[in-house]
Amino acid sequence: MDRVSLSVGSGGKLMRDFVKEVIVETLGNPYLEQFGDSAHVNLSGDLCFTTDSFVVRPIFFPGGDIGKLAVSGTINDLVVAGARPLFLSLSLIIEEGFFVHDLKNILSSVRATSSSADVLVVTGDTKVVPKGDADQLYINTAGIGQKLVEPGNIREGDVLIVTDCVGDHSVAIMVARGEFDFWGDVQSDCRPLHSLLPLWDMGVKWMRDITRGGLATVLCELAEEKHIPVEVWERDVPFSPAVNALAEILGIDSFYLASEGSAVLVAPQDKTDEIIAFLHGIPEGRHASVIGRIGGKGKPGEVVLETASGGLRYLEPLTGELLPRIC
Amino acid sequence: MDRVSLSVGSGGKLMRDFVKEVIVETLGNPYLEQFGDSAHVNLSGDLCFTTDSFVVRPIFFPGGDIGKLAVSGTINDLVVAGARPLFLSLSLIIEEGFFVHDLKNILSSVRATSSSADVLVVTGDTKVVPKGDADQLYINTAGIGQKLVEPGNIREGDVLIVTDCVGDHSVAIMVARGEFDFWGDVQSDCRPLHSLLPLWDMGVKWMRDITRGGLATVLCELAEEKHIPVEVWERDVPFSPAVNALAEILGIDSFYLASEGSAVLVAPQDKTDEIIAFLHGIPEGRHASVIGRIGGKGKPGEVVLETASGGLRYLEPLTGELLPRIC
Repeated sequence: MDRVSLSVGSGGKLMRDFVKEVIVETLGNPYLEQFGDSAHVNLSGDLCFTTDSFVVRPIFFPGGDIGKLAVSGTINDLVVAGARPLFLSLSLIIEEGFFVHDLKNILSSVRATSSSADVLVVTGDTKVVPKGDADQLYINTAGIGQKLVEPGNIREGDVLIVTDCVGDHSVAIMVARGEFDFWGDVQSDCRPLHSLLPLWDMGVKWMRDITRGGLATVLCELAEEKHIPVEVWERDVPFSPAVNALAEILGIDSFYLASEGSAVLVAPQDKTDEIIAFLHGIPEGRHASVIGRIGGKGKPGEVVLETASGGLRYLEPLTGELLPRIC
Repeated sequence: MDRVSLSVGSGGKLMRDFVKEVIVETLGNPYLEQFGDSAHVNLSGDLCFTTDSFVVRPIFFPGGDIGKLAVSGTINDLVVAGARPLFLSLSLIIEEGFFVHDLKNILSSVRATSSSADVLVVTGDTKVVPKGDADQLYINTAGIGQKLVEPGNIREGDVLIVTDCVGDHSVAIMVARGEFDFWGDVQSDCRPLHSLLPLWDMGVKWMRDITRGGLATVLCELAEEKHIPVEVWERDVPFSPAVNALAEILGIDSFYLASEGSAVLVAPQDKTDEIIAFLHGIPEGRHASVIGRIGGKGKPGEVVLETASGGLRYLEPLTGELLPRIC
C-alpha cells in the first residue's frame, strides 16, 4: 500500500494490519504490542499530565518533522513542569491519500526522538478523514511524567536565563514554506529538553519552553502570574544570525518568534555560574545566557525591555497571529 | 467574539483570554485554573493510559455531540480495560470561523459527561487551523485511570454478554447526515460506561466497547487474541427497531455497526444471572442479553454465528470502510 486509505481508519481488519505493520512495527515496544485500547503502566506519587496537538505546515521542515516536533513538545511541557517524561500517547489524524512512506518517516522520527529521551509511546489511535477534511497529517501527543520538584518562590534579584537561541523554529517554518527567498542556513531547534532536568537540582525555580507567542509572551505570563516585575536586556538575548537577518528583512519582532528547543528559567542569582556552566556543557545549552532579572524598573506584572540602544520599552504578550500552524 | 479566529491559536493574549473565558469558564475546575502547560495529579499503582481522536461528522447528532462522544469514548476505553477513569486531557483542533456558540455547547457536553462519570478534564490544548484545513472541529481526549483488576482466564463454557443494544451510534450518524429519508426515531447511544465498573467484581474476565468495526470485529479480535472459538446466537443479540429497519432497507449487516455506549463481555457461566440482573437494573444495561459462549462449533480463532433462521456462518472482521467519520 502506497497511500493511506479510508479503510485504514475503519476499526476493521485493514486498520489492524496497518497499525501492526506500519505503526507498531516502527515504534515497536512491549506496551504497544499488547494491542489494547489502553496501556497499563505502573507509576506512583506526583505525576504531571499534558497534551498537545500538532498541525504544523509543512510537516517536514529543516531540522525536523511533525513527529519530532510532537514528541519534543510534549516532553518539553513535562520537563518545564519539573517532571521526568515517561510515557506518551500518539494519536494520528491522517488525510486520505497520505503517503505511507512519509508516515513511516514521521514515525521513525517519533521513535528516535522518544528513545533519545528515554520515553515510550505506549498507546495510540489512528483516524483517517476523507481528502480535504484535514491537511495531510495532524498529531496529538499526551504525556505522563514523574514530578520531581515543586517550583520555588521567585524573589526580587533572581536571574532570568535562556537555555539557547530563541526563535529558530518560527524562522525555519517560514523558510520551509518558501514564501520568500532566503539564502541563510536555518534549522528548527525542535528537540526534546530532558537534558535540562538536572537544572531542577541546581535551584531553578521556574521554567517555560519558548513556543507559540515567543519569549515576550512567556515573560509576560511569568510577570502576570507571579505578579512580579521582570527586566530583560536585549543585548544579552541570544538570537541566531538567521533570526536576526529575517527579523530585519521582514520587520518582525524576534521576541515573538517561537522556539521548540529552548527554555527560559528563573534561578537564584548565586546559582548563575553553576547553571550557565552546566548549560554550556550540553548541546541544548550552547548559547545559554543570563538575559535579565526579577525586579528592575517595571511594576509587578510588567516586562521592561532594555533595548540594545539603551532605551526602555514594555513587552506585551502577542496579540493577533504572526504565523499560523507553526506547531 | 462570534467565531473562532486564527489569533485564538496564536499562543498570545487572545488565546489566553479565549482559553480563560470560553474553555476554562465552561469546564472550570482547580486543575485547569492553574493554567499550566501540564496538570499535576497524585496517583499511585497500576494505571491505564489511553488516547482517542474524534473526527465525527456531523459534530451534533441525535443523542450527543463530538464532546460527549470524545469523553465517553475515552472513559469507555478505560472501563473495559478494568480501570476507574480519573483524569482526561482535552485537545481541540478548530477550523477558523467555527462558531464560539457551538464550541461552548460542545464544552458543556464535555463537562456534563465527565462530571457524570466523576472524571476531571485537567489539561488541554487549543489549535486553530485556517479555513479548509479541518472540517469544523476535531477533539483528542487522552485519559488516565486506576487499574482495578487483571482480566481473568477465559475458558470454554464462559458466556458472552452484551450490555445493551448494538449499532445505534452508526445509524444515528447516518440519519444525521441526511443521506436518506428515515422516519424512525434513532438516537446515538454514546454515553460513558463507568456504571459497568462493578461488573469486574462479579467475575467478568474480559470486556470491550463495541465501536468502529462493530460487534463482529470485536468478537473476531477476541477469538484471535485468545485463540479460542466463539459462538454467537443472532436471535439473542439486541438490536433496536431502527437498526433492524435500516439494516434491512440498506442491506447493511448490523453486526458491523458501531455503538458508543454498549460493551460485550465474557463471564463465567455461573455468574450469568447476577450479571444480567445487575445490568437490567442500570440504564446502560436495559437490553443486556447473553448472546453466545466460548466454545461451540468453531475452531480456535473463529467466530461462528448461529443465524436467526438456524443456519451457521462465520463472522469476519470488517474489511473496507462502511461509513467514514462515525467517531
